[in-house]
Amino acid sequence: MASHREDWTGHFRGPVLPGRTPGFVLRPGSVEEVVEAVKLCAAANVPIVPQGGNTGLVGGGVPTRGDEVVLSLGRMDAILDFDDVAGIVSCEAGCVLDALSARVAPGHVMPLDLGSSGTCQIGGNLSTNAGGLRVVRYGSLRASVLGLEVVQANGERLDLMNTMRKDNVGYDLKQLFIGSEGTLGIITKAAILTPSAPSAVNVALLGLSSYADVVSALAEAKRALGEVLSAVEYWDAASMRLVLEHCPEAVPASPLGASEFPFHLLVETSGSNNEHDMEKLSGFLEGFPAGVLAASATQAAALWAVRENIPVALKRKPGHTYKYDVSVPTLRIDEATETVRRRLRDETAVEVFQYGHVGDGNLHLNVCSEQHDAGIKDAIESSLYDFIRDCRGSISAEHGIGVLKAHKMDSVKGAATMGVMRGVKALMDPHNLLNPGKVLHTHNN
Amino acid sequence: MASHREDWTGHFRGPVLPGRTPGFVLRPGSVEEVVEAVKLCAAANVPIVPQGGNTGLVGGGVPTRGDEVVLSLGRMDAILDFDDVAGIVSCEAGCVLDALSARVAPGHVMPLDLGSSGTCQIGGNLSTNAGGLRVVRYGSLRASVLGLEVVQANGERLDLMNTMRKDNVGYDLKQLFIGSEGTLGIITKAAILTPSAPSAVNVALLGLSSYADVVSALAEAKRALGEVLSAVEYWDAASMRLVLEHCPEAVPASPLGASEFPFHLLVETSGSNNEHDMEKLSGFLEGFPAGVLAASATQAAALWAVRENIPVALKRKPGHTYKYDVSVPTLRIDEATETVRRRLRDETAVEVFQYGHVGDGNLHLNVCSEQHDAGIKDAIESSLYDFIRDCRGSISAEHGIGVLKAHKMDSVKGAATMGVMRGVKALMDPHNLLNPGKVLHTHNN
Repeated sequence: MASHREDWTGHFRGPVLPGRTPGFVLRPGSVEEVVEAVKLCAAANVPIVPQGGNTGLVGGGVPTRGDEVVLSLGRMDAILDFDDVAGIVSCEAGCVLDALSARVAPGHVMPLDLGSSGTCQIGGNLSTNAGGLRVVRYGSLRASVLGLEVVQANGERLDLMNTMRKDNVGYDLKQLFIGSEGTLGIITKAAILTPSAPSAVNVALLGLSSYADVVSALAEAKRALGEVLSAVEYWDAASMRLVLEHCPEAVPASPLGASEFPFHLLVETSGSNNEHDMEKLSGFLEGFPAGVLAASATQAAALWAVRENIPVALKRKPGHTYKYDVSVPTLRIDEATETVRRRLRDETAVEVFQYGHVGDGNLHLNVCSEQHDAGIKDAIESSLYDFIRDCRGSISAEHGIGVLKAHKMDSVKGAATMGVMRGVKALMDPHNLLNPGKVLHTHNN
Repeated sequence: MASHREDWTGHFRGPVLPGRTPGFVLRPGSVEEVVEAVKLCAAANVPIVPQGGNTGLVGGGVPTRGDEVVLSLGRMDAILDFDDVAGIVSCEAGCVLDALSARVAPGHVMPLDLGSSGTCQIGGNLSTNAGGLRVVRYGSLRASVLGLEVVQANGERLDLMNTMRKDNVGYDLKQLFIGSEGTLGIITKAAILTPSAPSAVNVALLGLSSYADVVSALAEAKRALGEVLSAVEYWDAASMRLVLEHCPEAVPASPLGASEFPFHLLVETSGSNNEHDMEKLSGFLEGFPAGVLAASATQAAALWAVRENIPVALKRKPGHTYKYDVSVPTLRIDEATETVRRRLRDETAVEVFQYGHVGDGNLHLNVCSEQHDAGIKDAIESSLYDFIRDCRGSISAEHGIGVLKAHKMDSVKGAATMGVMRGVKALMDPHNLLNPGKVLHTHNN
């Protein structure tokens, strides 16, 4: 049970309550076994925590009360069908993302890519509406889902397994289960539309002297690279130094040489004609004084390695890290970071790092201190969340709510919206048996 | 009231009941007036039919019982904001699609394009989850919606007006209102993500000798044109003859010359570099014996005119037309048409036409007879709907359910799914005041 009770960040761990069973994990091998398990739990009034690869960042996939059963989907990892003309893959919820990517290759790619792709499961990705590196090109994961199979809180199986690209027949019920973190039903199967695989992938890295330059470079990338643009990632000088210090095996030196830049912008193109794409990308690069264009797959991987190792370096750095995943208007991302930095200016030994999916307005703000400090946490959150409220941003861009942010929901969403969310929860799970305390803060969690 | 009581196809018209008021139309100018109108209707138990441009094809936007009030959103046509860096337009529900396209130009385009773009309103498009010509490139309209404002059945305003590309904060409630045809709430505002405008648009038309050739040409178009492919439309020889006969002012001759082809495939590319796109498109075309590539915008428009005039020609043709908009697996589109044709083989003076968005598996099947005949209708529907059930297709790909297909829902979707749909309806509209009888067949309509 141990590996199922705690999440990989180590921040969330289900308690073992005296006088309660220590909990256990159910590992069904089929939807019929899920149905049976849920019916037994419903009859005994035992709450269920659905769990995929347990790679979430907000504690949505681990028990929090001590009386829950974990329902792990990992054994349900069959890829059921792949239609390689239409590019539609149908699979069970426990499939690992990398296994799906391998199955749809070489003609197609999965419409999402995450750092945890070797471990995360598609059911968990769907329940989180996971974001990642490809949203700027392929849109939200939600948009690529054609069908789902779901087991409801009463154990009834709901067959929404459409494989048509277009189906306007009544309410699109599958949307209820995407991004609701297992609180409205347990996803057991999915059909996903996969884009054609690009035959050419090219990567460039720019060194920029201000955030204003990041914004103009982004606008120019969208204009000049248009339909082949597939990723736009940025990070600040502090993140660059952090990676060089803590991940020297992956990033021995800055790809831009000895000069230090306040901001870095990684631009990737994916297209069907390498010559055309290289012409577009090198034309784009000419407008900038500091930049490199990867001449091989190895060089491209070296540029990506900087971005990919920022979370690794943050984990290796001694001390405590406060992690935030927020959306703000693209123009104001750096202003959000500066607001937090200003608020923390009297704190010595506190460092602020910004990076993220700038093409989506998605900031990953990380603050490191020597040890966990409630005062620092409050200072960060009051400044950051006020800023987000003022610009109508989002307190969770892609990681979800889980237990981490459930208590913030009422103040962020307002009474009318929360009323409807609670109504939907009561409709789908009247006895609050599915992942209680996640997403919606309830009195009995 | 007359123009609001009848739909443009002329098939659906609200009755004027003796002893009832003949009904009237409300034309609110603001969300506050919508709130006030809905509260008054709720208090008096008067049902409401929300109406946009009244261009729907399934009778979803007109009264059907005689006791309803029509709530027309046409006066609420303000474009509230356009962020031309992020490409996000915010507007009221009554905005006409062409007006929005004009506002976001020249840097961006709306992610949908329909024949009715000069009349249809975005609120109606959203309530229908309208499809159209651009789904193959930009996905479902649903995928481009970032935020909505909705007035609920009790008159309460629901502010879901997010403008962030990523927002994973709780349940994505706006999905409930997209494609639910005004039965769960009245959409009053929307924020929509618009793609970058292509600087180059190119069109080619192929003449093909079998449906198998259509499928291979589609696969080759996806491979060779990849990210610049923006539309793939097909039509049969009967549709070509029909346009030449009934729309000679728009299509004086076949663009492919005197030879007749069993199938035609129109392929459009939209990209950021005309030279690159023309190279890709002419390379693609080389593989086919019969095809033309438009050398100018005028020639491109002439190729599109054939496809666009098929519905016009069907309307001009004397007699009755039975219209179907369905999804089946792309490989089996022609088989679906042939199944219906075979069933009708003993009917003289019946003609079958097939065309549609082949890139999406979306068949528009039209059957013409001298006059409306219930036996012919039953023959078409029993054969077509049986075929669709067997291949798990969709009885409404993009037009919706309205009143036209509400009675089919139970047999198509099954008891568990219908139970959840009815639960959602009861949650959002407990007194069945919003567009009663549409989507869900109820006993009191």
